[in-house]
Amino acid sequence: MKAVVLLSGGLDSATVLYHAIDKGFQTICLSFDYNQRHKIELECATELAHITKSEHRIVKIDPAMFSQTALVGTTIEVPKNREMDQSIPVTYVPARNTIFLSYALALAESYNCDAIFIGANALDYSGYPDCRPEYITAFQKMADLAIKRGVEGNSVVIQTPLIHFTKAEIIKEGLRLKLDYSLTSSCYNPRSDGRPCLQCDSCRLRQKGFDEVNAKDPLIIKFFS
Amino acid sequence: MKAVVLLSGGLDSATVLYHAIDKGFQTICLSFDYNQRHKIELECATELAHITKSEHRIVKIDPAMFSQTALVGTTIEVPKNREMDQSIPVTYVPARNTIFLSYALALAESYNCDAIFIGANALDYSGYPDCRPEYITAFQKMADLAIKRGVEGNSVVIQTPLIHFTKAEIIKEGLRLKLDYSLTSSCYNPRSDGRPCLQCDSCRLRQKGFDEVNAKDPLIIKFFS
Repeated sequence: MKAVVLLSGGLDSATVLYHAIDKGFQTICLSFDYNQRHKIELECATELAHITKSEHRIVKIDPAMFSQTALVGTTIEVPKNREMDQSIPVTYVPARNTIFLSYALALAESYNCDAIFIGANALDYSGYPDCRPEYITAFQKMADLAIKRGVEGNSVVIQTPLIHFTKAEIIKEGLRLKLDYSLTSSCYNPRSDGRPCLQCDSCRLRQKGFDEVNAKDPLIIKFFS
Repeated sequence: MKAVVLLSGGLDSATVLYHAIDKGFQTICLSFDYNQRHKIELECATELAHITKSEHRIVKIDPAMFSQTALVGTTIEVPKNREMDQSIPVTYVPARNTIFLSYALALAESYNCDAIFIGANALDYSGYPDCRPEYITAFQKMADLAIKRGVEGNSVVIQTPLIHFTKAEIIKEGLRLKLDYSLTSSCYNPRSDGRPCLQCDSCRLRQKGFDEVNAKDPLIIKFFS
């Protein structure tokens, strides 16, 4: 069995990679360079693909596609210690997961993969619409109609093993699979050496997760001790 | 009103561009370079965007995303004079329209466009699954759930004015709008100077369309008279 794994290099997608391998899939990792502020995550993705002996592709996306987001460029700042409510934050990137999944779909059909793994997660998350289960379901329906394999009744299946997990449950799964989380990067606004800001949504959700499983984040140990 | 127009440089998308302008839209044209055999179409797209005073963006897509298609690389030949039945031909490109529409969606939301125009057409076509109305409907539903504007009840609308048109009806619409079809390119396997092969599905559907409206194709006049 072969699968495309969308691998940003963050905590969720790294866990998904280990999960897919644990389930017996041969993995092709797919990452995207859209000149994101947190481009350091691509180094993590490269290292994770390497140590899991996965094939790895990094696709460049013109960052001009994504305006009006705090994650590209420097015009909009990444919010610090904001209250996470139901609203969509400025770190939202227009149609990002749709572009990522579309590439994964092309790659999966081109290389006879049965599945696409994505670390979308709708519990401890920032409120992005394209992380919700109803979005994934709609993407699957669209994909079934889009591709040859779908028409032939043998579609590529989008797997979201973490979608109903809390951050703590995700970390537990990763630790069970011996994933070294010091190789991942979650921060939206890290220093050039990868040191996390500890104030963005992503850093705080990560910290909350490690607190809940009573574990020390190895990334924090690496940078702050 | 602003719209993103998916402009390959072919007959259908050129007609859609003129149609969108006629409907009063300010147009941002979006084309893709995936090292397609018929890359000459990008020169047509550039010229069409220029003469209609549209903004134009050409996005590069790694052709490695698309294997097993006759339209990329030289391993698989473009069929000549094949019988067009209900099967999906080797010129099918995995998830192509899904990637194209996803980029259009990101661009539309980033630049406050109300609509995306695509020249998908399910009558005189090669049998691609991602040209069917049910596919477009499913993409719209997915898009409504994917993007911030969708969640806010003000989604980007995918417009397919040609979807139920025959090739002849498309050409009639273009001629009404004074579109010079010598500036378009349809052939899947043209010579380097743009001269069409006249044997691929696309050339033959085009020829049939012009025959049905009793018009001479200006592209044929340009190259063969």
